[in-house]
Amino acid sequence: MSDILVVGSLAYDSLATPAGEVDRTLGGSANYFSLASSLYAATKVVGVVGEDYGDDDVRMLTSRGVDVAGLQKRPGKTFHWAGKYGADMNEAVTLATELNVFEHFNPELPPSYKGAKYVFLANIHPDLQLRVLEQIESPRLVGSDTMNFWIHSQLPSLKKVLAKVDVLLINEGESKLLSGKSNAIAAAKEILAMGPKAVVIKRGEYGFVLYSGEGYFVLPAFPIADVVDPTGAGDTFAGAFFGSLAKADVAYDLRALKQACIQGCLLASFTVEEFGVTALKSLTWADVEKRAEIYGAVVTP
Amino acid sequence: MSDILVVGSLAYDSLATPAGEVDRTLGGSANYFSLASSLYAATKVVGVVGEDYGDDDVRMLTSRGVDVAGLQKRPGKTFHWAGKYGADMNEAVTLATELNVFEHFNPELPPSYKGAKYVFLANIHPDLQLRVLEQIESPRLVGSDTMNFWIHSQLPSLKKVLAKVDVLLINEGESKLLSGKSNAIAAAKEILAMGPKAVVIKRGEYGFVLYSGEGYFVLPAFPIADVVDPTGAGDTFAGAFFGSLAKADVAYDLRALKQACIQGCLLASFTVEEFGVTALKSLTWADVEKRAEIYGAVVTP
Repeated sequence: MSDILVVGSLAYDSLATPAGEVDRTLGGSANYFSLASSLYAATKVVGVVGEDYGDDDVRMLTSRGVDVAGLQKRPGKTFHWAGKYGADMNEAVTLATELNVFEHFNPELPPSYKGAKYVFLANIHPDLQLRVLEQIESPRLVGSDTMNFWIHSQLPSLKKVLAKVDVLLINEGESKLLSGKSNAIAAAKEILAMGPKAVVIKRGEYGFVLYSGEGYFVLPAFPIADVVDPTGAGDTFAGAFFGSLAKADVAYDLRALKQACIQGCLLASFTVEEFGVTALKSLTWADVEKRAEIYGAVVTP
Repeated sequence: MSDILVVGSLAYDSLATPAGEVDRTLGGSANYFSLASSLYAATKVVGVVGEDYGDDDVRMLTSRGVDVAGLQKRPGKTFHWAGKYGADMNEAVTLATELNVFEHFNPELPPSYKGAKYVFLANIHPDLQLRVLEQIESPRLVGSDTMNFWIHSQLPSLKKVLAKVDVLLINEGESKLLSGKSNAIAAAKEILAMGPKAVVIKRGEYGFVLYSGEGYFVLPAFPIADVVDPTGAGDTFAGAFFGSLAKADVAYDLRALKQACIQGCLLASFTVEEFGVTALKSLTWADVEKRAEIYGAVVTP
């Protein structure tokens, strides 16, 4: 088992979905990711929070064994995102993005972080992703995520990132935007030509497409009848994906990537059943194993 | 192996997709269905065409062994549908629907049809679906499809149909409309309470959800990078689905239903690669078997 490092946001989110509303609930890609990944392997977080960030919210990570030596506390307020979802929960409408302390974030890795083997660069400015990556000594597997904002505004930097990562994890809509293709199967092929050895296209309730030069692996999401809040499902997927790979302690290996995608689906299925990180906070291995068995039956003829 | 009976439309379609346009090409649910089902089992068609319907188009069915004794030729023109698709090919925009001879269609089954064991009531007026069903002596498995128009305008009749069918095959959007639920997993449960023993929700490029009281079976579509025209994919799915069940000669059986869904995905994947019925016309068993092997690899960890 090797260490995982994640750089991403720690945030307070205000969310409105057909199931209800919550104000300033704990969120951010690094929180979702590390709550999932820490079920599998030791995880180190790189990020920044403001003075308003609760000690309880830090302890929630440390109680799961997450290393927060790379978490900076800065004067000002924590990153805040407000979004809402309509009946089709596959896409969020952003109502507000307040970068706050995130605006001048400069990720400095503590020396103890630099030997991390599994590195995930969550959806942040591609220059910051590069800044983190250049501080890691000899990563075994590097993954990244991105979003429409960076694809539109920072494409040259983003392309530098793509040239250095092993796996890109990306939403379906953004895979089409990045590739200029109108379907995920075609988009996956195109993205592979930009550098990654594999791409995972996240399709919400429709699951994922994993593509490597060796072929496609495509499965639906774990079936959930009552989705409460899809926020963080993709970051949860990434956390379980990297957790699964780090636990197996393999480098690039297609069989392990497939299993990692399945773990991603399983963990994400819990996230969407409650608002924010609520479900992840109380999740146990027994819960995951039970759902793994059901998922096996759902996708097996 | 038992006979399949399908009632549905025979049409000339005008189609516009990002891949191009075709005018008055052969279409209609009964054509897509029987071109698919006849690869598996003997198929009988019930429908109506106008004086403009080409003899070649009838011969295309008879050359595949399809029984056209139930095909009426009436004064007037054949049903015509015009539709277009945007970059997201999952939903068509209807530009024109000319019912023509279909407007006064009264399905009368020839005596030789009344012993059919596998019966598919494609998307037509629910009263016509009932009219066909009451002429069948002792069907082994009955399936139906429907659309938003009938859900809005003929719900009482549609509910009578649902009370009599074993399997409903329906598009995802229409499953939500019929059930009042916002996700396919919840919709499937709700629809089962309306009568069918099982429901297959067709999700286009995202595959299908099969739900029976015994659990969910969910898989993605066969991965196609270049979709040319999605018209008829759902009817092709239904044809292969019923073909697979009739070939196996089983009544309601969950294992057989799962295999039938897989055959549905395989055949539909050919349909979408060319305009109209072009791909289905030249399809062979060898083509299907080759794709079955690839599909197995795509969905197996």
